[in-house]
Amino acid sequence: MLRLGLVGCGAIAHTHTANIVNKLKGAQITFVFDVFSAAAQKIVRDYNLTAKIASSIDELVNSEEVDAVLVCSRNDAHVEPILAAIKAHKPVFSEKPLATTYEDCQKIVAAEIEENQRFLQVGFMRRYDPFYQQLKQTIDGGKIGKPLMGYCRHFTAEPATNYFETPNMINDAFIHEIDIIHWLFGDDYVSVQVQYARQNSLNKNDNLVDPQIATVKMKQGAIVNTYLTQNSQYGYDVKCQIIGEKGIAELPDMPKLEMHSVGKIYHEIDHDWTYRFEEAYQLEMQDFIDQATRHEAPTGPTAWDGLVAALTADNAVESQQSQQVVEIKLPERPVLYQ
Amino acid sequence: MLRLGLVGCGAIAHTHTANIVNKLKGAQITFVFDVFSAAAQKIVRDYNLTAKIASSIDELVNSEEVDAVLVCSRNDAHVEPILAAIKAHKPVFSEKPLATTYEDCQKIVAAEIEENQRFLQVGFMRRYDPFYQQLKQTIDGGKIGKPLMGYCRHFTAEPATNYFETPNMINDAFIHEIDIIHWLFGDDYVSVQVQYARQNSLNKNDNLVDPQIATVKMKQGAIVNTYLTQNSQYGYDVKCQIIGEKGIAELPDMPKLEMHSVGKIYHEIDHDWTYRFEEAYQLEMQDFIDQATRHEAPTGPTAWDGLVAALTADNAVESQQSQQVVEIKLPERPVLYQ
Amino acid sequence: MLRLGLVGCGAIAHTHTANIVNKLKGAQITFVFDVFSAAAQKIVRDYNLTAKIASSIDELVNSEEVDAVLVCSRNDAHVEPILAAIKAHKPVFSEKPLATTYEDCQKIVAAEIEENQRFLQVGFMRRYDPFYQQLKQTIDGGKIGKPLMGYCRHFTAEPATNYFETPNMINDAFIHEIDIIHWLFGDDYVSVQVQYARQNSLNKNDNLVDPQIATVKMKQGAIVNTYLTQNSQYGYDVKCQIIGEKGIAELPDMPKLEMHSVGKIYHEIDHDWTYRFEEAYQLEMQDFIDQATRHEAPTGPTAWDGLVAALTADNAVESQQSQQVVEIKLPERPVLYQ
Amino acid sequence: MLRLGLVGCGAIAHTHTANIVNKLKGAQITFVFDVFSAAAQKIVRDYNLTAKIASSIDELVNSEEVDAVLVCSRNDAHVEPILAAIKAHKPVFSEKPLATTYEDCQKIVAAEIEENQRFLQVGFMRRYDPFYQQLKQTIDGGKIGKPLMGYCRHFTAEPATNYFETPNMINDAFIHEIDIIHWLFGDDYVSVQVQYARQNSLNKNDNLVDPQIATVKMKQGAIVNTYLTQNSQYGYDVKCQIIGEKGIAELPDMPKLEMHSVGKIYHEIDHDWTYRFEEAYQLEMQDFIDQATRHEAPTGPTAWDGLVAALTADNAVESQQSQQVVEIKLPERPVLYQ
Repeated sequence: MLRLGLVGCGAIAHTHTANIVNKLKGAQITFVFDVFSAAAQKIVRDYNLTAKIASSIDELVNSEEVDAVLVCSRNDAHVEPILAAIKAHKPVFSEKPLATTYEDCQKIVAAEIEENQRFLQVGFMRRYDPFYQQLKQTIDGGKIGKPLMGYCRHFTAEPATNYFETPNMINDAFIHEIDIIHWLFGDDYVSVQVQYARQNSLNKNDNLVDPQIATVKMKQGAIVNTYLTQNSQYGYDVKCQIIGEKGIAELPDMPKLEMHSVGKIYHEIDHDWTYRFEEAYQLEMQDFIDQATRHEAPTGPTAWDGLVAALTADNAVESQQSQQVVEIKLPERPVLYQ
Repeated sequence: MLRLGLVGCGAIAHTHTANIVNKLKGAQITFVFDVFSAAAQKIVRDYNLTAKIASSIDELVNSEEVDAVLVCSRNDAHVEPILAAIKAHKPVFSEKPLATTYEDCQKIVAAEIEENQRFLQVGFMRRYDPFYQQLKQTIDGGKIGKPLMGYCRHFTAEPATNYFETPNMINDAFIHEIDIIHWLFGDDYVSVQVQYARQNSLNKNDNLVDPQIATVKMKQGAIVNTYLTQNSQYGYDVKCQIIGEKGIAELPDMPKLEMHSVGKIYHEIDHDWTYRFEEAYQLEMQDFIDQATRHEAPTGPTAWDGLVAALTADNAVESQQSQQVVEIKLPERPVLYQ
Repeated sequence: MLRLGLVGCGAIAHTHTANIVNKLKGAQITFVFDVFSAAAQKIVRDYNLTAKIASSIDELVNSEEVDAVLVCSRNDAHVEPILAAIKAHKPVFSEKPLATTYEDCQKIVAAEIEENQRFLQVGFMRRYDPFYQQLKQTIDGGKIGKPLMGYCRHFTAEPATNYFETPNMINDAFIHEIDIIHWLFGDDYVSVQVQYARQNSLNKNDNLVDPQIATVKMKQGAIVNTYLTQNSQYGYDVKCQIIGEKGIAELPDMPKLEMHSVGKIYHEIDHDWTYRFEEAYQLEMQDFIDQATRHEAPTGPTAWDGLVAALTADNAVESQQSQQVVEIKLPERPVLYQ
Repeated sequence: MLRLGLVGCGAIAHTHTANIVNKLKGAQITFVFDVFSAAAQKIVRDYNLTAKIASSIDELVNSEEVDAVLVCSRNDAHVEPILAAIKAHKPVFSEKPLATTYEDCQKIVAAEIEENQRFLQVGFMRRYDPFYQQLKQTIDGGKIGKPLMGYCRHFTAEPATNYFETPNMINDAFIHEIDIIHWLFGDDYVSVQVQYARQNSLNKNDNLVDPQIATVKMKQGAIVNTYLTQNSQYGYDVKCQIIGEKGIAELPDMPKLEMHSVGKIYHEIDHDWTYRFEEAYQLEMQDFIDQATRHEAPTGPTAWDGLVAALTADNAVESQQSQQVVEIKLPERPVLYQ
């Protein structure tokens, strides 16, 4: 039974904890920490955990009762527990984004290189989604030939919060495509551009430009457009269509009953992400648990993937200012991540 | 320009006349007849025809200004103009059903055999529908192996008229499947059974049992179930699914825009048959015109097909009484129709 | 942690054990029994169980280290451990069919009535499938009006074994529809008929009539046809289409990538049942574990459902002889199962 | 019977002539002209026309036996017969593109303005396609709210000719989207950009960059991306997806049998455009004939639409050089075309 230390006890910590307690195998949470101790107490109570409450990140990470660390704290507070875990040679799972600055990402990558070992898995759960997995296998298997272009939709029915503003369209929405597209294509980005389309009058947030179109280009020439809205009204709709030299492969709609009713042949589409990605959240965490239990380095998204995403997102937010193309100057990929 | 004599000037005559005038090539209506002369006058006026009004069927059929005959009169009045046309060696198109009694159908078949030539095309327009055509070719081409079973839906949103009663479900609806199924399977019926399913409380006609399920068996063992309702509420829905030894072939839905709206991914389904079968009505008549113009025997549904449908429908109506299986005693197929 | 005693250690026992060990929460197998002790030893070894091997069913069922019993033995050996568990007031999960004779089913029902309590859950896992669940809710919610008719396909690509013979089409395939259809319609069967369609020449088993069509009628008049083949060639295809007073609800295809390739727009269909129903197997067992842990009576398929299925299947096998309708004389539903 | 004079007797002239002779109503070709008289003689012979062969465009256009003019000559030879027809106040149908230079388009527009009347219909047949028609009505009817973004595919399985080079991707392929997109959105273009994606190694033409992505922006902010390839390999695939404030409307696939076979659920996609657009070619010409017969100005695509397309295409070809955004400086729309 893998003993997990949980840093940060907010919403996403509850999601992971619920899964660990109710769905996943082989792990228990033995230590929790939150800067607000009430939050730490609450999660212990809510899930009836037999866990201690740590008084510091250091205490938690270095405890002999902690085999691996989950980082679910605020985005700008990821770096401290991650660095501590790497130093302690303990497997660490961090929610995305890896950090809020490119510099912090570089520190984390440097820390792993220093130890010459990978400990970190970043929570880009889409890579564990069975349909993205099929897409990756289909591309890698050559079924559509080399991938040349892509078209993605990342639509939510309504903004997650009132505080969802223009840069959030990159940092909280497009960030998922940033991670998944270069993984699918097996290539690196050379540029990103964000353009504003005709604005949706049903968008009620003055600080949110909606919709936007983000375009990435890759070294081998592939171009992918991602259409982004937080106000689709009709539902949660994540699509990814990859066009190759001899065919197209595309994510399916989520299965629902096929209905004939009132002049329509239809199936329903969900309002939010739960049904679409709940399995991916479980699969990524089970994989982390299983690999940590076997003392293997995580094979999921790495610190380097986190750095790539952070840099690309920074450049995309920069592009939002001018709506012009921004070049992405990615350093050479370190040997540890090849 | 083929000169057509039109017998019977009711609703379906208007459909054919509108097509001949507005859509089809190579024919004009030069003579019309109706037992109600006002109906004859009306159709001439409505379509601005340069046609004479005949005072009898004989006058029309035998006129030197008539090359071929269209029979759109009441179902029980088809036999007279058809026999006259055969005797006059003129191509004749008759609306379905060929006649209202099996005996009349036998007379028509006998008349053609007497002349040792085929003159008649029966208006089973579905055989001209592009999708039934694809289905026939797919089966005959061996793509699904030998056809073993079938499942059909023949649904209308609401009854065509207040006078649509229990036997009409056979004579006006299932009659289409009767003709199309043995054609698709290339086989003859050995029995038919009609069963009443749980009744639809939204059906407001006390003289109509709705829904019904009609089952036909064929000599080589194939079984096809056709589900019949005049009260689907949701739309006009004709489906035909043929299950073969190694696959299934099925009619597509009619194409409509793919929509994402209000929590649904949908396309519309029509309320009535117009869009579904208007092309088939045009194609059957154009084929009749073209073959008559070339002095060729019609290759569409024959008098024999009309007789098979009449006998099978009679047996199906008989089955409605008991809901038991009724054996179909089809005579041997005459050489003329092989 | 619920302590389970496992009776019978064959193929389906391995499926459940793998799930309990790798996927499900809250249970461990503490005792196993098989008439072949090698099979018992093997399952302990294969899954590294910390379980004792019982020398008799009685020892296992009545052990203080067993909270609940899983019956995965041969179909004709279900009754003994089930009766023992009921007598011991322990929750018991039995694979379908409940028993191989109607008399044995009656004994089990009588035993629960004697104790005036339900202990048994029968392994009709389809009721836990999310799509059958949606179908049930859609019907019960009135979205399609009252259900009037149904059309099902139960197709496998090829026979599971060389020993799959004509009656197996009922007892091992149609048995699933028998259970699910009366549950979906909320009604009881009054008759069943099995007919043989045109035979598939690709079927290589002389003792297997393939395909067959099974028709059930229910008290309120609904009729459902199930098309059955073990030789679809193209894949594993389970469909269920329910036609109501104002609409149709139908199981979806399992989601797969949408592909454009080589002149086709397609998605794949699986060769076997694994992907289609693996989740249902997990959900039924988790539900059993959770309810047993809470000392609640199981709410899944009951002994009565098992008896209904056994009686209907017996009648269906009888119908195979004559291909005629066989009346189903179901006794009145005992109060315990209302 | 409308008497048509046909200028230019090449491939597209044969398409229109075949339709006029075999499918359409109310017109006959009475005069033909081609700079190669053999081509004129051939078309008369092939379709058994009772038509005279003109010795000059002027003779044909001004003949008393010509009521309306069809221009099917080489693209750079459209302007002469069009100007002659306008001067003669005769309805004129011209194949797209209207002309090969923006200046020629301006001359044609000026000629109509001079006569203060519209005579010309340009052969952008997609506007007559029933599905683009549905899309237009759906948008205009407000079903998806205001249109904000679009995604189009214009894919052919293989290049139409060996001479299909990089600029042809604009002038012969994208030209259709250029016309249809501003019509669908009811807006004017402000810029166009053409980018080259990763190149398809199966493209065997060194003078063809393939694939390309063309992006147009409109005054009200809408952005539409069109993915263009002449080497899809898998088939002819024209899609148009319009994303509005509250929903998406998208062209359907062309209907084909739904098949289950060899592990796939599929329908076929055609290899070329014939099935997709043959009806549109017929409908545009029938509309031209009907309006000319009624002495009404054509309501199809106008000279102004031809000019807009020519200017946008010129700018798109310019963008191919740099792959940068090119501003489109469209003059104000003349009153005649409002």
